[in-house]
Amino acid sequence: MQVGDRILQLADHLAQWSETPGGLTCTYLSPAHRAVAAEISRFMQNAGLETHTDAVANVIGRYASKDERAPTVIVASHYDTVRNAGKYDGRLGILTGLVVAEQIARSGKPLPFHLDLIAFSEEEGVRFSAPYIGSSAIAGRFESAWLEWPDTKGISLAQALREAGCDVAAIPSLAHRKSDLAAYLEIHIEQGPVLLDADLPVGIVTAIAGNSRFGVTIEGTAGHAGTVPMGVRHDAAAAAAELVLYVERRCSAPGLVGTVGRLSLPDGAINVIPSRCELSIDIRSEDDANRLAAVDDVLAEMHEIAKRRGVRAHATLLMDAAAVQCSSRLQDVFARSIGQSGLPVRRLPSGAGHDAVMFDGITDIAMLFVRCGNGGVSHSPLETITAHDADVAARILLDAIERLAR
Amino acid sequence: MQVGDRILQLADHLAQWSETPGGLTCTYLSPAHRAVAAEISRFMQNAGLETHTDAVANVIGRYASKDERAPTVIVASHYDTVRNAGKYDGRLGILTGLVVAEQIARSGKPLPFHLDLIAFSEEEGVRFSAPYIGSSAIAGRFESAWLEWPDTKGISLAQALREAGCDVAAIPSLAHRKSDLAAYLEIHIEQGPVLLDADLPVGIVTAIAGNSRFGVTIEGTAGHAGTVPMGVRHDAAAAAAELVLYVERRCSAPGLVGTVGRLSLPDGAINVIPSRCELSIDIRSEDDANRLAAVDDVLAEMHEIAKRRGVRAHATLLMDAAAVQCSSRLQDVFARSIGQSGLPVRRLPSGAGHDAVMFDGITDIAMLFVRCGNGGVSHSPLETITAHDADVAARILLDAIERLAR
Repeated sequence: MQVGDRILQLADHLAQWSETPGGLTCTYLSPAHRAVAAEISRFMQNAGLETHTDAVANVIGRYASKDERAPTVIVASHYDTVRNAGKYDGRLGILTGLVVAEQIARSGKPLPFHLDLIAFSEEEGVRFSAPYIGSSAIAGRFESAWLEWPDTKGISLAQALREAGCDVAAIPSLAHRKSDLAAYLEIHIEQGPVLLDADLPVGIVTAIAGNSRFGVTIEGTAGHAGTVPMGVRHDAAAAAAELVLYVERRCSAPGLVGTVGRLSLPDGAINVIPSRCELSIDIRSEDDANRLAAVDDVLAEMHEIAKRRGVRAHATLLMDAAAVQCSSRLQDVFARSIGQSGLPVRRLPSGAGHDAVMFDGITDIAMLFVRCGNGGVSHSPLETITAHDADVAARILLDAIERLAR
Repeated sequence: MQVGDRILQLADHLAQWSETPGGLTCTYLSPAHRAVAAEISRFMQNAGLETHTDAVANVIGRYASKDERAPTVIVASHYDTVRNAGKYDGRLGILTGLVVAEQIARSGKPLPFHLDLIAFSEEEGVRFSAPYIGSSAIAGRFESAWLEWPDTKGISLAQALREAGCDVAAIPSLAHRKSDLAAYLEIHIEQGPVLLDADLPVGIVTAIAGNSRFGVTIEGTAGHAGTVPMGVRHDAAAAAAELVLYVERRCSAPGLVGTVGRLSLPDGAINVIPSRCELSIDIRSEDDANRLAAVDDVLAEMHEIAKRRGVRAHATLLMDAAAVQCSSRLQDVFARSIGQSGLPVRRLPSGAGHDAVMFDGITDIAMLFVRCGNGGVSHSPLETITAHDADVAARILLDAIERLAR
């Protein structure tokens, strides 16, 4: 099997559909997103899979076991992107799964489990600040309250789903029962520099970092930029600036990362003292206690800044995901497949969240990371992988599925 | 004459037209802006003035002198607003001028000058980051390069003017010659706390602060919020936060104010390290040397931050307006009118820029400030004035015009 080039070509093909010219942006239920779903559905059908698109726009292709009552092994990742994204984040896992499932389907080889290749519709949380919409529905963790959450244009998730022709009432029925599932496997680019620095094409994920996300609103007092003395201002942007720098400083402690990825002055004008600032805070660690201590400190500092500056600050928890351990059993399956191919086995944690976390406690999960070029950059057009590494990943995934089938 | 209540009612009436529900926003050539222009034109016609709307959407009402070759006294202010504005910034000057011009026109009293009441279409610089579009055209300071400047939607000033039915080619012909003009008078709310603290309804402006404005773009490197270690990030928002706090700190020195009123992360997402931040800087002082020293320090710090953080920072000068002195002769005319009404004469500088600055060097200028309530707040829905103070301002303006006519 030499499928690396094909995987990269398919990723190039899917990257044609974007909300932004000259870059790749494919957020949940946008026209670009719906076009990509249709392409993936076509790919899966051509690969010989029983294909359908579900009520949250996941695209699912099944190679069924002859035993109808067999459990399911899910191979999955997501097809939505961040703004100005790379081509491989999420999609590499779908496309690697596609070439592997196609090979299995073409062989006609019977499996003791249903093999479900799932292209999750939403993982990044860009449009609704609710990530994992696709995988949460399959894992039975979709929360109906999310349906009322608005995007930045005020369109609710429910409205966006209905406009895309999705049957909102059918979402609860998408959930798999625990007893239905045998394993969850996900191939994903590393999105960091560890494998690149170690000169290895792939690595086995040991655990996925926990993640706290907040939306923060700071309300100060508007005023004329020329006439209100500095000493009596209540400037929402200056308060936010202090908070941004505190997040950076506090999360520079070992084992943490912290990011303010969104920041806006909704009523901003060049000659008006900002009265309102909205921003996001994202804090991660593999160690939950470390993460939660940082969150406490950031929120305490936010209140301290607000008190000192005479502004109001309010944080809304958007996500509080504990760190997730990958299955030792499945890690060992991947390790044997890697060993079989003559490569050293490298295990590493994931700083990024992945759809896999939704399956924690529901079935055994495993993830295989693929080396990123360009210093490990992701969420950026500079994201790269090589055909060689994609090929290695596909061979290991195929071997691992065959081992599970024995 | 008891016209204060009428001035406030007219301001309430004009505040009906807004781009934003539940607040007042009336930016250049928006549907709300064009509706307000039509109302002001109707007001001027009803007041007995020869009324027309010019090629940049200024509304002009003339009470003509019998001597066609007489010079012109301009009474003016602007009808555009900032976002989420008060009702009196700009419009108080137009409406005070309206009731005074109406009284003069009704009396039929001959004047040795043409009295032009001008409602300038654009002063705030919200839509095109180019302030004084209306007054600059009348003062012959409109720069044709501005025609290419885009708004945030990419619509150029020229295109917006054409879509509003304005004849772009006619703009140069709007300019008055120096010899045409006898004086420029502007009534404006103070937009600060000085008259409120002094318990005075009006004060005479001595000078208008100089103003430097910049647009700043900071470019860092995008990356995944979970996987890029803090120590190797090039975060555009964190760099911007440092600059915001430096502007605040540096401009807290005596005689200065400094504001970052706009700040955005155009590609921002909750889980992506910001790669680009755009912000505005506005620095003002009555003392030009003080202002320019602060600007130098802010730009030097910007480059220092960029160097230290490995980001690129670029500042574009949007405005460099020197401080402007008001005419001693006209200040004295206002002083005699105020004295006549039995009030103490208070003189004060203006921290805010005004249309008056466009007429510096072209004709003598004078401004009368009217007390603001609520601690002097402006550029905010909390902006207030009293009918009593509006009445005082109208009486003083009428008396001053009569003194100029003698």
